[in-house]
Amino acid sequence: MIDIASRVYNHTWKIDPIVRSVLDTDFYKLLMAQTIYRRHFQTRVTFGIINRTSQIRIADFVDEGELREQLDHVRSLSLTRGESTWLRGNTFYGRRQMFSPDFMAWFEGFRFPDYHLERRDGQYELTFEGPWIETTMWEIPALAIINELRSRAVLRSMGRFELQVLYARAMTRVWEKVERLQRLGDVNVADFGTRRRHGFLWQDWCVQAMMEGLGERFLGTSNCLIALRREVEATGTNAHELPMVYAALTDSDAALAEAPYKVLADWQTDYEGNLRVILPDTFGTEHFLAHAPDWVARWTGIRIDSKEPIEGGEEAIAWWRARGQDPREKLAIFSDGLDIDDIERIYRHFNGRMRMGFGWGTLLTNDFRGFAPDGALDPISIVCKVISADGRPTVKLSDNPTKSMGPPEEVARYRRVFDSKPEHARAVLV
Amino acid sequence: MIDIASRVYNHTWKIDPIVRSVLDTDFYKLLMAQTIYRRHFQTRVTFGIINRTSQIRIADFVDEGELREQLDHVRSLSLTRGESTWLRGNTFYGRRQMFSPDFMAWFEGFRFPDYHLERRDGQYELTFEGPWIETTMWEIPALAIINELRSRAVLRSMGRFELQVLYARAMTRVWEKVERLQRLGDVNVADFGTRRRHGFLWQDWCVQAMMEGLGERFLGTSNCLIALRREVEATGTNAHELPMVYAALTDSDAALAEAPYKVLADWQTDYEGNLRVILPDTFGTEHFLAHAPDWVARWTGIRIDSKEPIEGGEEAIAWWRARGQDPREKLAIFSDGLDIDDIERIYRHFNGRMRMGFGWGTLLTNDFRGFAPDGALDPISIVCKVISADGRPTVKLSDNPTKSMGPPEEVARYRRVFDSKPEHARAVLV
Repeated sequence: MIDIASRVYNHTWKIDPIVRSVLDTDFYKLLMAQTIYRRHFQTRVTFGIINRTSQIRIADFVDEGELREQLDHVRSLSLTRGESTWLRGNTFYGRRQMFSPDFMAWFEGFRFPDYHLERRDGQYELTFEGPWIETTMWEIPALAIINELRSRAVLRSMGRFELQVLYARAMTRVWEKVERLQRLGDVNVADFGTRRRHGFLWQDWCVQAMMEGLGERFLGTSNCLIALRREVEATGTNAHELPMVYAALTDSDAALAEAPYKVLADWQTDYEGNLRVILPDTFGTEHFLAHAPDWVARWTGIRIDSKEPIEGGEEAIAWWRARGQDPREKLAIFSDGLDIDDIERIYRHFNGRMRMGFGWGTLLTNDFRGFAPDGALDPISIVCKVISADGRPTVKLSDNPTKSMGPPEEVARYRRVFDSKPEHARAVLV
Repeated sequence: MIDIASRVYNHTWKIDPIVRSVLDTDFYKLLMAQTIYRRHFQTRVTFGIINRTSQIRIADFVDEGELREQLDHVRSLSLTRGESTWLRGNTFYGRRQMFSPDFMAWFEGFRFPDYHLERRDGQYELTFEGPWIETTMWEIPALAIINELRSRAVLRSMGRFELQVLYARAMTRVWEKVERLQRLGDVNVADFGTRRRHGFLWQDWCVQAMMEGLGERFLGTSNCLIALRREVEATGTNAHELPMVYAALTDSDAALAEAPYKVLADWQTDYEGNLRVILPDTFGTEHFLAHAPDWVARWTGIRIDSKEPIEGGEEAIAWWRARGQDPREKLAIFSDGLDIDDIERIYRHFNGRMRMGFGWGTLLTNDFRGFAPDGALDPISIVCKVISADGRPTVKLSDNPTKSMGPPEEVARYRRVFDSKPEHARAVLV
């Protein structure tokens, strides 16, 4: 039987929204937002979209009017009562009331701020200016919208069965990866794929497939809305924007050198346990670890995000040992453009030597490589990064120079302060 | 929104019927039924299930109670008003009113006769005794039920996403075959896969995928119900049961030798055009063609069903030439356990030399090979054949001795009458 009401309701849609909830974002944004709320409520920052895959002219595929409609729809969203109840009542990382009542009150009143969109040279210049606590919330929905609009543009020309077979192929590919994970033993994997996902429904499918296929070995998803609906853990810690903004706001080289540790000092006031995972690569991992105070080595773990993962893992183990820590009690989160081959290789290399978690992103939720002519559904490397803070440019050096950003003279200053030599560039696929 | 009525309705099902319509059968059964109705209304025949893949112990997988439930459900079916309207009003093979009013009146009153089921040695002995016009109708539903019950037994233990990926794999496999057909040019393909299908819904999917993928090059389906619902051609002509019964009813060797041509003489009274396709292999193609009257060579085409297809096609071309016919105006229907490799090979071999049609069966609608452990979803070679007519045993020699049947002394007599030497056996996969 046809549910007439559903059909008619669907007819009345003006658009088919890509982002339908404030919670359709990564959990780390909420953790960071609370820290920003408590300490940097007045700080103003600008976020901007950067397409690292510059040969893909996004504006040729994605219609400006549609992009505006989707962004405008996000601006109409606010936290629903049930979503707020979930944030207040759920256990995150083993802890109740992760979010304090004052932050929740702010979040319930939160609306997405305005955006600035211009078409330039086949790309979109999309920026968000305003209070850090507000603009930070745009990162994930903006990326998800651009990626899904690009997918939709390709899918529009496909027949009904062609479409079904497309998803059949994608499902088969994900499941074959899940089967390889099953064979790998007690590997722990989380979905980190919101930002560059093929689409919301597809990410939701991938999460459910991982739940069935991996059981307890599936750690959860970074996506709050999917975590809520599928009743799995919401996962994630923090990102480069914290040290980038803290650094940009310093007034001396000495303060700049201390900024990454100031971030961690603030963070451990707010969060404990498995949320104490350092992200050491913003201005170069080597310098960060060498100059870190001992209390940083006592944190639960480290995220290895831009260094060659085996090298990054060995570096962490050596550092923990040098600081009198037992690496087998430590946690390394790998999260840089992973695919199943990488997970297998890293897991086998480090198995038994430290705890590991894999934050599997784009190549979980958007591995449509080769499924459309000319790679039209292949994922692209697009990011939404903080560009400036209170009028000062931000800088990221990274362990992979392909991922560095900032004005050249500032990059040079940061390189001097953090004693950073440009390393070998590694190709950035996603 | 959930359609509550649908959900509640589904709860009330006692069984999930495999065959839900009298029309969920192959079109050739209706054509043959009309011929039987007109000439052999009193003839009584017995049909029986034969599992050529005898190492598969069907009774170990398929529960006897479930099998009886499904067969009993078929006995509750009768032609619906809409189905009758379709048979009366639709164009088949370019002709209206293919079925005469008296036959239609009989068909509207038709109910499936009783069956006899016994479990023996890991197999089911399933036979149908009664008027030929009634028992003939059991062939397709009985086979479809056994095949689908076997699938369902395997599927029952699978998880929800495991199931979805199973179908994703199957869809991908079918679609890759369709893409190969697209590249092959103007090849004409029909679905002949009802009897050994994985399941009804899956056959329906395959037909729709062929419709979208092949357009005009998809000739239609042998399944009447799917042809009705999807508004495509119903295809098929006649089967070995006609010459087998005609032969069994003869009283002399001379009459026996004439029986295959008597079938065709009756058939051309009833049907014309593309329905005049000879099926020459029941008692050996070589003898059949050599002794055929000239009017047989004027028929539209030939079905090559048990001989090695290239050999069978060449034999037909040579025969048409010898009889003063232009092979380029003739039609060869290939239908013996075809898969895409065979279709490509045969098409390329004969392209331009005669018209071709491919009746694609089991490896279209049940190619789940390798998708379950121990080949539990691989298709098996199971048939439902006429065993006796008015108390006399029937015989089939075939061009492939693996497919021959009948009591040894009768087989010997037929071999003598039709001057048939046992040929090389070819493995029967499906």
